[in-house]
Amino acid sequence: MQKILNDIRFGVLTVSDRSARGEREDASGPALRSAIEERGGTVAYQAIVADESSVIEQTLCAWCDSTAVDVILTTGGTGCAPRDVTPEATVEVIERPVPGIAEAIRAASLKFTPHAMLSRGVAGIRKRTLIINLPGSPKGAVQGFEVVLAVIPHAVQLLREDAAAEIGHTAQT
Amino acid sequence: MQKILNDIRFGVLTVSDRSARGEREDASGPALRSAIEERGGTVAYQAIVADESSVIEQTLCAWCDSTAVDVILTTGGTGCAPRDVTPEATVEVIERPVPGIAEAIRAASLKFTPHAMLSRGVAGIRKRTLIINLPGSPKGAVQGFEVVLAVIPHAVQLLREDAAAEIGHTAQT
Amino acid sequence: MQKILNDIRFGVLTVSDRSARGEREDASGPALRSAIEERGGTVAYQAIVADESSVIEQTLCAWCDSTAVDVILTTGGTGCAPRDVTPEATVEVIERPVPGIAEAIRAASLKFTPHAMLSRGVAGIRKRTLIINLPGSPKGAVQGFEVVLAVIPHAVQLLREDAAAEIGHTAQT
Repeated sequence: MQKILNDIRFGVLTVSDRSARGEREDASGPALRSAIEERGGTVAYQAIVADESSVIEQTLCAWCDSTAVDVILTTGGTGCAPRDVTPEATVEVIERPVPGIAEAIRAASLKFTPHAMLSRGVAGIRKRTLIINLPGSPKGAVQGFEVVLAVIPHAVQLLREDAAAEIGHTAQT
Repeated sequence: MQKILNDIRFGVLTVSDRSARGEREDASGPALRSAIEERGGTVAYQAIVADESSVIEQTLCAWCDSTAVDVILTTGGTGCAPRDVTPEATVEVIERPVPGIAEAIRAASLKFTPHAMLSRGVAGIRKRTLIINLPGSPKGAVQGFEVVLAVIPHAVQLLREDAAAEIGHTAQT
Repeated sequence: MQKILNDIRFGVLTVSDRSARGEREDASGPALRSAIEERGGTVAYQAIVADESSVIEQTLCAWCDSTAVDVILTTGGTGCAPRDVTPEATVEVIERPVPGIAEAIRAASLKFTPHAMLSRGVAGIRKRTLIINLPGSPKGAVQGFEVVLAVIPHAVQLLREDAAAEIGHTAQT
């Protein structure tokens, strides 16, 4: 498998009341970790939190502000149940949305199941970190990750640009 | 026709200045009502209002807060004319957006006409009610409804979950 | 080539630090101008500005508020680099989003390259003017323009409607 994520640092955040309480093993977080590592990426942070907006926001902010992660993948909390608030928490912390990522994940998933349209995930940038909400099931999370995989190296390259490097920046995207 | 909407309670809101003034018969509201009832759903509320944001918002809130409807379908006011404000009124009252529903309706419609991209409809959740903006023509409204039909039972099931039931909730969406 | 843009007045705004500083020739603005004029449209305003949110916002507002342009096309600043803020500036000035335009541009572009999902462009209406963010490369900008070309005449017709004409407005979109 191509190591296209070589040198890219990830955070993996599982959002699930039951897994946070220890009532259900977290299968999605480890599945994402394997998918990342198979392609050469590094997991700098991994955690499980409850479906509480404040806790999700605090974790996302801490990881972004540490400057130790390039990309955060969340899994869970994107559905329509009353406790599903991952997209709302994510919107609170991102500074610049990247709507095309969520659109592409849903459009790819919609080819297999109409239920994809109920997945409320968003994506966006906080400082130099890209945050992507993925579905809660291990299969859905990994499939969503595979949809965006090809663009992560370019996105991270752009996010790492500093003011000096920017003089050579072509803004072609 | 399969009664997949059995036990699901709808509100149908026609947004149109001309129909509200009695200058044009409302064809879209009745067309949606028929489509709902053919599949076993119940119409708990039906109304016609003018293209006034405050009136649209008040009606949506009253219906959601009554806890007597699971899904509200609006028809009209999603275009680009100066008086088209249904999406803005809807955004004001929803607590959690469901962007994939509007994306799926537009993507399906785009296969037939490029004008679908001018339809500004949104969808989202207020409390336990899902609100979906549909186009203003009877044909456009019913076609949009058919795009989301298959996911309504699952969405309503999730929205009805209470804190107790949630312990068994799988958050797979 | 069909003159479908006859009588439609455009503004073309290139957003690029390097072009604003004179370090790189602006190829995208002239490419859009040619594409507009070939189809019978008129370019009322054309400018190059740096990737500064306040300057982008001021220019967009001045052009919209002049009532001299029906459609503004921006090119550049929609990527993920730290200085790319065209969508944020656009969101600040639009009153009513038209999400389907940006979705359609990205979906069309996604057929050619996965990088389309990193293009963060938005579209929306301020007063009687439609603003559309296009990618920064000449090719990407013109391809995006061609995706929306077919709907511009209808959108402009709707935007020009005044309260008097609205009595005959059918709100079918």
